[in-house]
Amino acid sequence: MSGFELRRLAAARPDFRERFAALLAARTPEPPTREVAEILAGVRAGGDAALLEYARRHDGAEAASVAELAWDAADFRAAYERQEPGLRAALQDAAGRIRAYAERQRLQPFVWTDAAGSRLGQEVRALERAAVYVPGGRAAYPSSVLMAAVPARAAGVDEVVLASPGGDPAVLAAAHVAGIDRGWRLGGAHALAALAYGTAAVPKVDLIAGPGNAWVTEAKRQLYGVVGIDLLAGPSEIVIVSDGSVNPHWLASDLLAQAEHDEDAQAVLIGLGARHLDEVAAALQAQLPGRGRRAIIEASLRRHGALIEAGSLPQALELANEMAPEHLQLALAEPAAALAQVRHAAAVFLGAHSAEVLGDYCAGPNHVLPTGGAARYASPLGADAFQKRITLQELTPEGARELRLLRAVVRGGVAQR
Amino acid sequence: MSGFELRRLAAARPDFRERFAALLAARTPEPPTREVAEILAGVRAGGDAALLEYARRHDGAEAASVAELAWDAADFRAAYERQEPGLRAALQDAAGRIRAYAERQRLQPFVWTDAAGSRLGQEVRALERAAVYVPGGRAAYPSSVLMAAVPARAAGVDEVVLASPGGDPAVLAAAHVAGIDRGWRLGGAHALAALAYGTAAVPKVDLIAGPGNAWVTEAKRQLYGVVGIDLLAGPSEIVIVSDGSVNPHWLASDLLAQAEHDEDAQAVLIGLGARHLDEVAAALQAQLPGRGRRAIIEASLRRHGALIEAGSLPQALELANEMAPEHLQLALAEPAAALAQVRHAAAVFLGAHSAEVLGDYCAGPNHVLPTGGAARYASPLGADAFQKRITLQELTPEGARELRLLRAVVRGGVAQR
Repeated sequence: MSGFELRRLAAARPDFRERFAALLAARTPEPPTREVAEILAGVRAGGDAALLEYARRHDGAEAASVAELAWDAADFRAAYERQEPGLRAALQDAAGRIRAYAERQRLQPFVWTDAAGSRLGQEVRALERAAVYVPGGRAAYPSSVLMAAVPARAAGVDEVVLASPGGDPAVLAAAHVAGIDRGWRLGGAHALAALAYGTAAVPKVDLIAGPGNAWVTEAKRQLYGVVGIDLLAGPSEIVIVSDGSVNPHWLASDLLAQAEHDEDAQAVLIGLGARHLDEVAAALQAQLPGRGRRAIIEASLRRHGALIEAGSLPQALELANEMAPEHLQLALAEPAAALAQVRHAAAVFLGAHSAEVLGDYCAGPNHVLPTGGAARYASPLGADAFQKRITLQELTPEGARELRLLRAVVRGGVAQR
Repeated sequence: MSGFELRRLAAARPDFRERFAALLAARTPEPPTREVAEILAGVRAGGDAALLEYARRHDGAEAASVAELAWDAADFRAAYERQEPGLRAALQDAAGRIRAYAERQRLQPFVWTDAAGSRLGQEVRALERAAVYVPGGRAAYPSSVLMAAVPARAAGVDEVVLASPGGDPAVLAAAHVAGIDRGWRLGGAHALAALAYGTAAVPKVDLIAGPGNAWVTEAKRQLYGVVGIDLLAGPSEIVIVSDGSVNPHWLASDLLAQAEHDEDAQAVLIGLGARHLDEVAAALQAQLPGRGRRAIIEASLRRHGALIEAGSLPQALELANEMAPEHLQLALAEPAAALAQVRHAAAVFLGAHSAEVLGDYCAGPNHVLPTGGAARYASPLGADAFQKRITLQELTPEGARELRLLRAVVRGGVAQR
């Protein structure tokens, strides 16, 4: 027994609103605003020399020039060919699943003719150059390369580039599978500044996509408007809504898998009945001693974890909507029926077998997702992030005459054409 | 004769690249970053009291409380009923055109079953509460209310609110036509801060949409991530690509209509043949003395205007792509054939009769558009801005088993569930 007790809340208790609000407020860490602003300004003003200096300081790079940090398609291919066949096949399989999903998300053009004979519509164009950012270290998942680059290719982007501080061989192999054209072993805010402003060695891109740590996310926030940004992804979150029909040991395992991401990760279960929550709590205590990264798991659960007792399934779903989580797992006997009440979540996993830890990895739907409540208004990364719409209108003389009259009435004047 | 000479560039000249780059660089004015940051922090910390103080200082409000600045649906209805029938009909007509366009842009759900029997798909949900911002003063167009609020309603947003510093009766009447629920006579960065953070009197919204001046746009840029933002709209721009087939007097009129927006507006014509450009220049000189707002027009043209001579239609279109303008008018004998070469523009107007000054007003396509080159990656405001996607997956035991194996291969471990 670990003795670790996960925070318990109950919707019926008088202190619930206050404690629930505190749980939500704690999700958003203070960003390194000033430090990131300095780095962005430094690269903007200093170009490759500044970029190289930051890479030495923050990425541990030992290069004499930015060119030495560059990868081309041959590097990605070589990394792929060095992998064993099982991993190559797995990457191809995962890429295929992600592609099948992304292709369904492409924006569609349309055109129609109105009563005056004018043609109205929209065209769709892919971006010219998009960058995929992939973190280094333990967060260097080859799946993250696929999740960002495969939708870019499905959208028809001309050139897809990679920035990643690690150089993990599986990441480079995934870059080959995803069809990335070239890249740089660069990370953090300085890498994003180079991609947003352009330097002599790193071309300016139209959009930067992909996950990252607090520095990367803050850099994306500050660069919004200089360059396109997919979304702001903060610490990872899961909310499990459970009616007691799924094995508590499975649910405990899912909560632990989330908590082990990092100390800022959030794992919350909203369940029906105190006894079910007791069972999940007991399963957590039983599993914790056997898990790796136990210090991180305990820190995450202590800061952000909770077992919340709801009085009914509608109440449980309403609380989940208030959290607007990145991942929502519906561990329910009839998950499809509950889906209609789900309003705010980025990715939903339905039923006993849809563990986020599996499905999020490579079932097909994207795992680059809005966090911290941004699922109230933001969508998962998709092919549409790499496309844009253009509105079209071709007026007939009759159509132009109608609009001239309409405009004159509303503006109180007469258009001179 | 006014004696005013519009800047001339020719793609074939050796100084072209330098002068063209200067024309592009001058588009982006320096934003009031620090002043806006102070206002946002002030409202965030000070709530309604700070908001009211800023409203007195910047909007000229003479209210004793924020509640006095509030409008409800009855206020909008009363403003509508006070308008004359012609204007009411015009507003309804315009709203109908915008709605017909926006309804075609709604995101679509999908679902399919993969080989392992797992179900994959996406759901679409509308935002709960969206704010429409409409500038005051001369930029207080009722059409701007319709352009932001009608797509929000078409998307299915629960509550649409208005912030506008002016209180122009036609704007309030348009709010009724668009179905806006309530609003506040508030403008500028402080209005956006209240909507993004929420105060006692102003509810926190999920997304802020609509055009605004440099302060509003900078506030939107800084609030990105706190709240959803439609897009960043800076000074207005038009690029006309002309092969000489459209009357030069019409084209001069279109350039002047753009330049009269404000001194930061940009009006550029890229044409074939020096003689055609001479004709447009002469038409500009002929029309200028008869236009109102002549000082503004001349300042805009002097700072940002140009007549650019291209050597061929493909070259002209390529230069237009480099500008990635807000508005692109294809004044061509065969505009539809040229469209395929248009890569970067927010709104395209095809043919002799599709003057931006008419079509942008209320043909149907939205006139809230990315500027300053952001059309490289951003889209016009549409119904999809007021919706978000949710990814779905429901795995079968067989599907979960496959993913567990796939994950084990790539991660080099075995998922514990």
